[in-house]
Amino acid sequence: MRMKVSIVGITGYSGLELVRLLARHPKIDIVSVHARQHVGKKLSELYPHLASICDLVITEIDAESIMNQSELVFFATPSGLASQMAAPFVEAGFPVIDLSGDHRLVPHIYKEWYQKEPGLENIQEQFTYGLAETSQIFGKKFIANPGCYATATELALWPLVEAKVLSHFPIIVDAKSGLTGAGKSLTDSSHFVNVQDNYVHYKLNQHQHIPEIEQYLKQFDENVPPIQFSTALLPVNRGIVATIYVSVKSNVEEQDIANIYQTAYEGKPFVRLQEQLPHLHQVIGSNTTAIGFALNEKTGILTVVSVLDNLIKGAAGQAIQNMNLMMGWSEELGLQTEAVYF
Amino acid sequence: MRMKVSIVGITGYSGLELVRLLARHPKIDIVSVHARQHVGKKLSELYPHLASICDLVITEIDAESIMNQSELVFFATPSGLASQMAAPFVEAGFPVIDLSGDHRLVPHIYKEWYQKEPGLENIQEQFTYGLAETSQIFGKKFIANPGCYATATELALWPLVEAKVLSHFPIIVDAKSGLTGAGKSLTDSSHFVNVQDNYVHYKLNQHQHIPEIEQYLKQFDENVPPIQFSTALLPVNRGIVATIYVSVKSNVEEQDIANIYQTAYEGKPFVRLQEQLPHLHQVIGSNTTAIGFALNEKTGILTVVSVLDNLIKGAAGQAIQNMNLMMGWSEELGLQTEAVYF
Amino acid sequence: MRMKVSIVGITGYSGLELVRLLARHPKIDIVSVHARQHVGKKLSELYPHLASICDLVITEIDAESIMNQSELVFFATPSGLASQMAAPFVEAGFPVIDLSGDHRLVPHIYKEWYQKEPGLENIQEQFTYGLAETSQIFGKKFIANPGCYATATELALWPLVEAKVLSHFPIIVDAKSGLTGAGKSLTDSSHFVNVQDNYVHYKLNQHQHIPEIEQYLKQFDENVPPIQFSTALLPVNRGIVATIYVSVKSNVEEQDIANIYQTAYEGKPFVRLQEQLPHLHQVIGSNTTAIGFALNEKTGILTVVSVLDNLIKGAAGQAIQNMNLMMGWSEELGLQTEAVYF
Amino acid sequence: MRMKVSIVGITGYSGLELVRLLARHPKIDIVSVHARQHVGKKLSELYPHLASICDLVITEIDAESIMNQSELVFFATPSGLASQMAAPFVEAGFPVIDLSGDHRLVPHIYKEWYQKEPGLENIQEQFTYGLAETSQIFGKKFIANPGCYATATELALWPLVEAKVLSHFPIIVDAKSGLTGAGKSLTDSSHFVNVQDNYVHYKLNQHQHIPEIEQYLKQFDENVPPIQFSTALLPVNRGIVATIYVSVKSNVEEQDIANIYQTAYEGKPFVRLQEQLPHLHQVIGSNTTAIGFALNEKTGILTVVSVLDNLIKGAAGQAIQNMNLMMGWSEELGLQTEAVYF
Repeated sequence: MRMKVSIVGITGYSGLELVRLLARHPKIDIVSVHARQHVGKKLSELYPHLASICDLVITEIDAESIMNQSELVFFATPSGLASQMAAPFVEAGFPVIDLSGDHRLVPHIYKEWYQKEPGLENIQEQFTYGLAETSQIFGKKFIANPGCYATATELALWPLVEAKVLSHFPIIVDAKSGLTGAGKSLTDSSHFVNVQDNYVHYKLNQHQHIPEIEQYLKQFDENVPPIQFSTALLPVNRGIVATIYVSVKSNVEEQDIANIYQTAYEGKPFVRLQEQLPHLHQVIGSNTTAIGFALNEKTGILTVVSVLDNLIKGAAGQAIQNMNLMMGWSEELGLQTEAVYF
Repeated sequence: MRMKVSIVGITGYSGLELVRLLARHPKIDIVSVHARQHVGKKLSELYPHLASICDLVITEIDAESIMNQSELVFFATPSGLASQMAAPFVEAGFPVIDLSGDHRLVPHIYKEWYQKEPGLENIQEQFTYGLAETSQIFGKKFIANPGCYATATELALWPLVEAKVLSHFPIIVDAKSGLTGAGKSLTDSSHFVNVQDNYVHYKLNQHQHIPEIEQYLKQFDENVPPIQFSTALLPVNRGIVATIYVSVKSNVEEQDIANIYQTAYEGKPFVRLQEQLPHLHQVIGSNTTAIGFALNEKTGILTVVSVLDNLIKGAAGQAIQNMNLMMGWSEELGLQTEAVYF
Repeated sequence: MRMKVSIVGITGYSGLELVRLLARHPKIDIVSVHARQHVGKKLSELYPHLASICDLVITEIDAESIMNQSELVFFATPSGLASQMAAPFVEAGFPVIDLSGDHRLVPHIYKEWYQKEPGLENIQEQFTYGLAETSQIFGKKFIANPGCYATATELALWPLVEAKVLSHFPIIVDAKSGLTGAGKSLTDSSHFVNVQDNYVHYKLNQHQHIPEIEQYLKQFDENVPPIQFSTALLPVNRGIVATIYVSVKSNVEEQDIANIYQTAYEGKPFVRLQEQLPHLHQVIGSNTTAIGFALNEKTGILTVVSVLDNLIKGAAGQAIQNMNLMMGWSEELGLQTEAVYF
Repeated sequence: MRMKVSIVGITGYSGLELVRLLARHPKIDIVSVHARQHVGKKLSELYPHLASICDLVITEIDAESIMNQSELVFFATPSGLASQMAAPFVEAGFPVIDLSGDHRLVPHIYKEWYQKEPGLENIQEQFTYGLAETSQIFGKKFIANPGCYATATELALWPLVEAKVLSHFPIIVDAKSGLTGAGKSLTDSSHFVNVQDNYVHYKLNQHQHIPEIEQYLKQFDENVPPIQFSTALLPVNRGIVATIYVSVKSNVEEQDIANIYQTAYEGKPFVRLQEQLPHLHQVIGSNTTAIGFALNEKTGILTVVSVLDNLIKGAAGQAIQNMNLMMGWSEELGLQTEAVYF
């Protein structure tokens, strides 16, 4: 018995990645794909390489029609859309996994950081924030899928925050992203010539994933240190690298950190703890977050490096993982693919 | 009932790609991995991202031991090794798929182009050249898997050669390869600094895939025009682009070419004919060769562009396709993965 | 005594490259910079790294005002602008160097290939096509600066065409360009994600430099073979590689080709003949075109590789070289800079 | 009257960059180039693009012969060579600029961090550490040219350290380098395939520039906070990005920081303070260090971003700047070249 799903926002990177992954999922049929652009075209006209797995025509975004033919909807839309479109689904109790930022934050914080009108509070508060490794997802209907930077950062930090090994100095996150993380829109900052041979800081202290991370970590310790968060564009297509600097309490040793992480991720198939600091090749193409760390005894600073594929673990893959958990399936279904590496 | 296979040359790009793909093959168990380096180490010590799929220790290359525990062996070795090591397997009738160039050419031509001692003639002649779309593979035991440039070029050309639409002017192949096509050895020409922001021609008219292509095409027409073959390094990791210029007879029209290709590739899952000239993103990560073409009526030149992932369709993927065909399985087993695209 | 010059189209790649190079020219002062965008802003607000060499404010494009303050104008505009704006300068006898394609072709051919309205015929015909190595520039007032692909191709071909060593088979040009060659406009094809790790053919047989090359070569032989011309985007910022395949007459030997090129480029500081096929690192950052070749005796095909920096020799550098020649100065003034190489 | 100079270590990146820059220096003649490899070959055989500026044959490294024909020697050698070869020059009072790390540290610290035998203490202590913007160079004879990471970091930090605005929390430097910074030797970590599409941390807390920076900063405040220093390889050829996080005292405001930097770099042609955080395109090809910063009032963390071209300001350019200062010439001689930018 296969479940029917629809994808809204099919022409973006996350939407296309959902198609690529879901097409090989053993329990899923994609029954409709939706967008505001290219309505009436076959997806495979735009992307011939998808012809073998998806024969669908792009249709308009219509809640009624989606609910009639499908059993779950993914929103892979830019921020500002799902907040406007989710209400009828939620009101009807129809399962939604929202990959955008629209249902992760309480409305007034959303408004402040996204500079967009939030959705209705009573809709937003029905969503569960879905960091798949820590959240209780089974049986939930409405999932706010985490951001890519947020996923990398939160998976690196919550075990330390929960274990209360950090001293009260700001947590410094020097995060880098490949260009698919910045979306498909055509801007000077995504023009090849400006990215190639370059490394560009942007949105310093202003990235919208900052309140998401803070809100998440406060579950584990209301007094978590403040977060200093830098974001920069790497000249690569995929990948998040979060290099994180935290000050640990003076009696904490490297082995303590190792124990904390091992306990936290025991039995979690999509977090890999590495003895060496991880790099992007080790995760690109997979749903894995790889984490490594080193404690500098001279400075008392623990460096944690957390890497993931922003389109998989940072978007479509984690959305599928959340769907699996929601349904009570193995969380690995459809996601058993290793890093492409080279 | 799963088949046991061994991989010789596990530390090279093709060997690692075989592991990645075979680990998800529904009918295969990898039972041993072999190399001359790193013997005694776990593969996952060198490549932590493989820990979830391969727990094997690298062992020495020993024919006896391989035949005792396995049912088929892949040689993913640099040229010059399989020719020295294949004999005991062949003599014992033990199935071999050789990804190297060692068994593709008759010995004296091998010696001329590879500048290495060939294997024994009576061994070499038992190998079947395995361009999976055209060769008769079922029931064969010894397969010489084609080269990456050769695969892209041959798939683009044999239908035209067989249909005898070419006038007798040299076939011009302007071929480009990503760096994994040049192997893992450390040379000035593979140092990042020399490749990045560059485009470097090499081995003009001297690439060892030239006689392989000529030998292959002569099956279809003994009088195939001579081949002018250029090779260059693209600053990318994966991918072959063969841009091919042929002069067609004066009465040949674009629709004729379309018909020839459609007939040739009807029902072939791993060749995709495209209306637009294909590009690398459309094939990287998949076992597909994408082919597009355009006829210039002013010059009488037909341009054909053939692209593939050199580690998959140009190496490990085609080797698995050949194994599937050899065994009488669906040729798609273990290869149902679309282009990663972005 | 320094000459005052103005630059129209300052915000494009060629305009900015003119500023960078002219700022160090010993006989030039840039007195005004013009664009349709960013009028009223200092150039160094947009590009802080230019603060040390250019303090000018961007002003509107006004012929009268340019002629009042300056002695020569460069048009570094997209095609379709110079044709509309050049007339008052030409009528006033005010020197113009047009880097765009607007004055290279006779009007009806321009219209066919650029799909834009041409300028007036009596204006266009006063322009001299300025391939600096072969054209008579001294004393001319109106220069149509050649295109980047055209420069690489013409410098490789005219000596062979003039020497009449080619048989009558199409000349095949497999040309590749970095992304600055495709301009600054924001399109899907210039988005980083689509260019990185890719190689994309475009405008096959339709590039507007084709008639420019044909028109140029016909000066040397009215019966020059037709040109088959491919263009593709390399994932690099700068550089043109023209890989050219010509069929030579049967009695022509490699040494003949060497002699032809040596004679052609004796004393030409910006063409470097190389024994090895050249690559981009050898020219990027300089005004040099590097040319290498190899004759394949089996096929009778001569392969010529011609490389240059599209923003220097293919645009701003050649424009300065033409200005130098126009004025009777050493052609090297302001252009004495070697390839950056790494 | 031009000065004659020799370059030892001509085949490395820094040696070649010295040739490229010094060839256009108005007061310098390069009279000899030396290396251990390729002795007897013309430099232009290895690098044809240098033919127009350097006709020299590579000769062995012989102190006597260098002192006989030259007036100053640059050591552009890997660490461990200059320490063995500098003594005769120093003893003879012959000017030396050492671009390697061999004379920057006191011997026992050198030995600890470079794991090599240091030179003699009485030789080492005659060298002046040459951070050109702050050191007293005029009239000195022996200069230890700073490291690339060290230059970027020190220029960003010394004004803050001197102004005593930092609280006593570790200084966190998240530094990134292009591949030319890692040298020409052939290693897995410099193979194109491992660098492309990747971001690799290395030598965490172990980079040999750490003691250099600490030693330098202690001049300005003996109690400078300890330094947490990360290094990573960016998939670019040139460039250092130092992203630096410091905790400032609670009464320090953003304008204070601006004032400190403006005072520090008033009249310094090779440091550019930018309102926006700088990126690599703004400095590559030039001798400029660009510095930008932002103070986060929520966290009290000041982020400073310092970028430079590691082969110019981080090596050959600063060496020439130091030579100019040593001789009492304008420090800009031979270095008046803007960022190539695109």
